[in-house]
Amino acid sequence: MIPADEMKFTFQSILLKHGFTKEKAIACAQIFTGNSIDGIYTHGVNRFPRFIEYIQKGYVNKDAVPFLKIKFGGIEQWDGNLGPGVLNAVHATGTACKLATEFGIGCVALSNSNHWMRGGTYGWQAAKAGYIFIGWTNTIANMPAWGATNAKLGNNPLVIALPYKDEAIVLDMAMSQYSFGAMEQYAVKQERLPVVGGFDEAGNLTDDPAAILHSGRPLPVGYWKGAGLSLLLDLLAAVLSGGLATNEISKKDAEHSLSQIFIAIDIAKLGHASAIPQIIQQVIDDYKQSMPANEKYGITWPGERVLAARKKNIEEGIPVVNAIWQQVLLLQ
Amino acid sequence: MIPADEMKFTFQSILLKHGFTKEKAIACAQIFTGNSIDGIYTHGVNRFPRFIEYIQKGYVNKDAVPFLKIKFGGIEQWDGNLGPGVLNAVHATGTACKLATEFGIGCVALSNSNHWMRGGTYGWQAAKAGYIFIGWTNTIANMPAWGATNAKLGNNPLVIALPYKDEAIVLDMAMSQYSFGAMEQYAVKQERLPVVGGFDEAGNLTDDPAAILHSGRPLPVGYWKGAGLSLLLDLLAAVLSGGLATNEISKKDAEHSLSQIFIAIDIAKLGHASAIPQIIQQVIDDYKQSMPANEKYGITWPGERVLAARKKNIEEGIPVVNAIWQQVLLLQ
Repeated sequence: MIPADEMKFTFQSILLKHGFTKEKAIACAQIFTGNSIDGIYTHGVNRFPRFIEYIQKGYVNKDAVPFLKIKFGGIEQWDGNLGPGVLNAVHATGTACKLATEFGIGCVALSNSNHWMRGGTYGWQAAKAGYIFIGWTNTIANMPAWGATNAKLGNNPLVIALPYKDEAIVLDMAMSQYSFGAMEQYAVKQERLPVVGGFDEAGNLTDDPAAILHSGRPLPVGYWKGAGLSLLLDLLAAVLSGGLATNEISKKDAEHSLSQIFIAIDIAKLGHASAIPQIIQQVIDDYKQSMPANEKYGITWPGERVLAARKKNIEEGIPVVNAIWQQVLLLQ
Repeated sequence: MIPADEMKFTFQSILLKHGFTKEKAIACAQIFTGNSIDGIYTHGVNRFPRFIEYIQKGYVNKDAVPFLKIKFGGIEQWDGNLGPGVLNAVHATGTACKLATEFGIGCVALSNSNHWMRGGTYGWQAAKAGYIFIGWTNTIANMPAWGATNAKLGNNPLVIALPYKDEAIVLDMAMSQYSFGAMEQYAVKQERLPVVGGFDEAGNLTDDPAAILHSGRPLPVGYWKGAGLSLLLDLLAAVLSGGLATNEISKKDAEHSLSQIFIAIDIAKLGHASAIPQIIQQVIDDYKQSMPANEKYGITWPGERVLAARKKNIEEGIPVVNAIWQQVLLLQ
């Protein structure tokens, strides 16, 4: 268990050592720590060493800032300039919210950015500021089209969020049923996946994570449906931003130059704004009246377990894999 | 096989007989025929008798037109006034496109509307006019939350579309792996579903359509992911439109008073507009280089098979189930 403040300070000092300005070091450290506090360790502490590696290799330009390419009404195109993906995404989210304040709905299309780590971060950012958020990123090809054996699609995470009480309801879903990271964790523990997660080499659906890692054929969510959604998200990201699509990103020597979309809607501008908290509460109250199939498991809304992890990790410290934390400390 | 013109004329005369104005009769007949031409019979010819039934029962008010509730920049709230869902949706799509022309991105949030039949219709409409389209509708509760046994979620179809050549790429996906209509068709033929489609009464995943129809537990796409997406789409539809959420619609004696979202983006306003067709073509060309797992089945993009059905049905006539067509003719 690492206290959140200690983790943040550690990240910050490593980033300073690697030449980040104080302002950027604080902002990046905050996001990597926040993702860890929220229980998304794969895109928090576990990913931090690779973030530093990508800085060192020049895939991520620590000093670059995004610049505006074109502006028309509520839509703006920005070039991420290959700067840190998390900082570009925070900036793009804030800009989309400003556009929404002015035009009701705003869209920032960002080209040439880097991995934004946890997409949910930007959903929480916008929703806690009072906006509805719809955003997504493309990725390298890591999932075959429906009926295909070779990866042509990204798993292109999609985020949808809206304010709820003082917090938010945040959906953050990749287009593959399981991430490779999740399947590796099951494989290491020699466990089966809870539901089928891909195809084996023979083309049979399987819940054996090792077989899927071997075939490279993870399952799109909803089979043909998630494959189609992934294609459309990639097309929209590339078309709107003027940046690279998954097929071009996949030609690079590492995953960078991503295209990302940030749409915000200012619900304070709606005619019934004061009634909105009640509308949301009523839906959640009804949802919570679902009858559980198994009394052991409650029915949760997207983001609810994040809030529970956040509370626990702030109180008790952030659980870390010792080997990973030692790797982080060596970067100091 | 019914020639498209004959089907359209038949629908039109029935609508006139039921008191539709000529303009509205033509517009409705066009959509029901178009959906049938495109091979989406469940939301074309097969659904037409129920559309007339809903008119007769007063769930759909044939004379009602939508009215503007509030406008702020690129976002408008409309009340569908319980008019014909297809006409309201065509109007909302056109209005979202006009807003996009003015503000780059436009959103129409529509409350109190009726079933829009095939969501893809509005994706094709916007994309063929040169816009990117993102839209969805809520529905009555017909799918349990993840881990629950009773239906609290709608299957809330989501549509994403963009222009492609002189046509469009159109994704039109409900949040359940299979519709009840599709499962009924498999059940009648005593066939298994191609992939698991829900739970049986004992709570086991199954590909037996009859068992799922019996339990009332269809599977969300991607298990917990599609359930979460369904909840968010319903929340956004109700919050943005000020209309009813799935839980309230489900208290009605039939599925009406739906909330729907129509977002359009004017890609002509983007800085690289002239390069967009090439960006799309490059993605599709790469996608088509996928290696098929089974040589019998090609790799298609969303909307590609619709275009093939359209071509065939225009040339050869629209295949109909004789019993359904007789039911239609009796309405004349």
